[in-house]
Amino acid sequence: MDEQTPAFTIVGAGLGGALMANYLGRAGHRVDVYDGRPDPRAQGFVGGRSINLALSTRGLTSLADVGLADRVLEDAIPMRGRMMHSARGELSFQPYSKDPNDAINSVSRGGLNITLLNAAEEYRNVRLFFDQKLMDVNLDAPAVRLQDQQSGEERVEQARVVIGADGAGSIVRKVMAERPLFSNSVEFLEHGYKELTIPPTEAGEFAMEPSALHIWPRGGFMMIALPNKDRSFTCTCFWPFKGENSFERVPDRASVQAFFEKEFRDTIPLMPTLLEDFEQNPTSPLGTVRCYPWRHEDKVVLLGDASHAIVPFYGQGMNAAFEDCRALDARIAESTDDLEVAFARYEEDRKINADTIADLALANFIEMRDHTGSPAFLRRKRFEKTLHRLLPGWYKPLYNMVSFSNIPYAEAREIARRQAMQIRFVGRLIQIALVLIIVLVIGMTL
Amino acid sequence: MDEQTPAFTIVGAGLGGALMANYLGRAGHRVDVYDGRPDPRAQGFVGGRSINLALSTRGLTSLADVGLADRVLEDAIPMRGRMMHSARGELSFQPYSKDPNDAINSVSRGGLNITLLNAAEEYRNVRLFFDQKLMDVNLDAPAVRLQDQQSGEERVEQARVVIGADGAGSIVRKVMAERPLFSNSVEFLEHGYKELTIPPTEAGEFAMEPSALHIWPRGGFMMIALPNKDRSFTCTCFWPFKGENSFERVPDRASVQAFFEKEFRDTIPLMPTLLEDFEQNPTSPLGTVRCYPWRHEDKVVLLGDASHAIVPFYGQGMNAAFEDCRALDARIAESTDDLEVAFARYEEDRKINADTIADLALANFIEMRDHTGSPAFLRRKRFEKTLHRLLPGWYKPLYNMVSFSNIPYAEAREIARRQAMQIRFVGRLIQIALVLIIVLVIGMTL
Repeated sequence: MDEQTPAFTIVGAGLGGALMANYLGRAGHRVDVYDGRPDPRAQGFVGGRSINLALSTRGLTSLADVGLADRVLEDAIPMRGRMMHSARGELSFQPYSKDPNDAINSVSRGGLNITLLNAAEEYRNVRLFFDQKLMDVNLDAPAVRLQDQQSGEERVEQARVVIGADGAGSIVRKVMAERPLFSNSVEFLEHGYKELTIPPTEAGEFAMEPSALHIWPRGGFMMIALPNKDRSFTCTCFWPFKGENSFERVPDRASVQAFFEKEFRDTIPLMPTLLEDFEQNPTSPLGTVRCYPWRHEDKVVLLGDASHAIVPFYGQGMNAAFEDCRALDARIAESTDDLEVAFARYEEDRKINADTIADLALANFIEMRDHTGSPAFLRRKRFEKTLHRLLPGWYKPLYNMVSFSNIPYAEAREIARRQAMQIRFVGRLIQIALVLIIVLVIGMTL
Repeated sequence: MDEQTPAFTIVGAGLGGALMANYLGRAGHRVDVYDGRPDPRAQGFVGGRSINLALSTRGLTSLADVGLADRVLEDAIPMRGRMMHSARGELSFQPYSKDPNDAINSVSRGGLNITLLNAAEEYRNVRLFFDQKLMDVNLDAPAVRLQDQQSGEERVEQARVVIGADGAGSIVRKVMAERPLFSNSVEFLEHGYKELTIPPTEAGEFAMEPSALHIWPRGGFMMIALPNKDRSFTCTCFWPFKGENSFERVPDRASVQAFFEKEFRDTIPLMPTLLEDFEQNPTSPLGTVRCYPWRHEDKVVLLGDASHAIVPFYGQGMNAAFEDCRALDARIAESTDDLEVAFARYEEDRKINADTIADLALANFIEMRDHTGSPAFLRRKRFEKTLHRLLPGWYKPLYNMVSFSNIPYAEAREIARRQAMQIRFVGRLIQIALVLIIVLVIGMTL
């Protein structure tokens, strides 16, 4: 291994890979980053999943570490709550938090990625290579085999450490999965998603309230919309592929029109290109990836979607990946001389939290599509907010801990469980007390 | 497709494939079965996992369908309960059921497989081919590419329907997993297993009680033993690969000897070849396979471990596979003209039950290794048995529903949950009644 071999070879220049390059660049390591796609700064952004994403406290904390939080927030639109749209077009707004400063931030995936790449390239010890598609990984060398997408030629690059930040379809993970005892799980929902657009009005304004995440909850399926900086909204339909109220049931323009008139009537005047967009935009799957281990010795380590892709319903996929970068950087800084220890601690720290947010994201889909519209849900949210206001030291709603704190996901879920148990216990005490009072009152009147 | 093409091409002549060949043979279909291993009847049994297995009601029901239950039971040893061995060698016996006729049956995997193959070959419409290793499947044709293990030559066989009964490492499933939206999960435990032997005594007798499943529960790890027809026992160590009380910690004969003296002292005089066996026998992983869908159109369908391998702790892997065969045969008989409907119904029927028994088997590992030795566990089991005796129409322990009934696994779990809720509810009523009585007594004495 010669002097030219970088300390870290990152595969994937998406959000996680690009942020990791910033962390390692800042720490002074020699870093090479390879991505199979063209440079988004030269060619326009290609691929990736949704157009905008919700950036919240965890992600912002990591961006602040590398000095980018303010720059990113300049281009973000804060969303302070959920705006529910009923089938008849009635609106109701639920703030995310008792604190009006708590907001999740709608950011452009492409814009954020470019910001991260530009910042990474400012470190002289970081190099970015595009059009370099990963074909294979030698875990033991370690080394990566890359194919130049211009010439078609393949070559092998030796590495000291390979960081697999190559997304949900990770090649690095697939190679690791060939080894004994590697647990690997890819599970798809029966729902897919399709993106649509609400452009700015003719007057150049937002067509709906911009500081909210809009939801059309319909029970079993839903649509959501997030604001963009250009005053448009990106809508996403989350519907089943098959069966009732599914993509399969709207095969042509007439059926799309009829379905929107029935279920999303208030959006029709806002979507002049609905039928064209619906026809042209792809319907994509939604999956959860889980695997273990996340590393091979001190040589290969996974982060972000490569090790734990999740469904988008808690708005935490990117935030969790950015937490991975923060944790991995910290563990490397603690144990630069023994990366096996660093990676083992990173894995131990992150695996349980990744599993937790995967579960929470799946559960939140059911909450968003089935319950956000119901009176019982609204009452429960009000009760949670009242408790939070009355007993801020004791009670924190789970949503707030996930979105507006850096409490590890698994710990947040434990706290939420404990709170729920305590509330049930108090409820039972109140029941018993009421029975006692009734008995006493009856006893006294007799 | 010519006249010679069989109606069903089964890949895998293990327990599930061989039983399916019996079902389809009995129904009069032309069936070809391919297996990559040599014919176990000529060469002795090769491969597969454990040496003996627990056959219970579900498996027996299927064997009875094809007229083999009595023949198989002749070679089986009924086990009527668990015999727990403490570290000090104390024994305690828990019957599985209030009904002494309820027993799970220890059968030889190799012997049962041979019985099934012999019976399948008695159908003139069933053909068995060994040393034919599956290399690839064309799902759309459908067709299978096979490699002759004698000549090394490969050929393609056209098929009408391919039944993937090729076990946990199923090639058919792997090919299906390349298609979009195919969910595929393989998860390993941190525990592995190693088999050992307790031979018959010098007098030719069983060295321990033969009509029990023996357990050495140690919390975090355990050993079990099942009796064989030749009066030996096959023991299986279920220990972590790494960490405390693990395979890693006993790298040589001295450490094995010391560990057995500490934890399994009562077995040492019964295992004359312990140290040799421990050294020579492999340490194998334990995994859970889940996937969805289980079929491709009306062309390919999976059964048994190929679609839902589970850990062995409920003794239900083979029994669940045999239930698959029964269900698949019934759905095919109902809809011979539309196999897509038959396979869809089979999948809908079986997927939820396979998921349920996978979960129950994982949970039972924790119960067996951590709780079977504890007084609280013994009390709970006694309470369950008392309830079952007093209210047999209402209360059925989950273990009994799983092992001694054909109630679908998912339904059994639901019944168990409902029973537990009702017991808690009655408990709470009793609490409140007690409080009331105390208050009334206090009120009357004042």
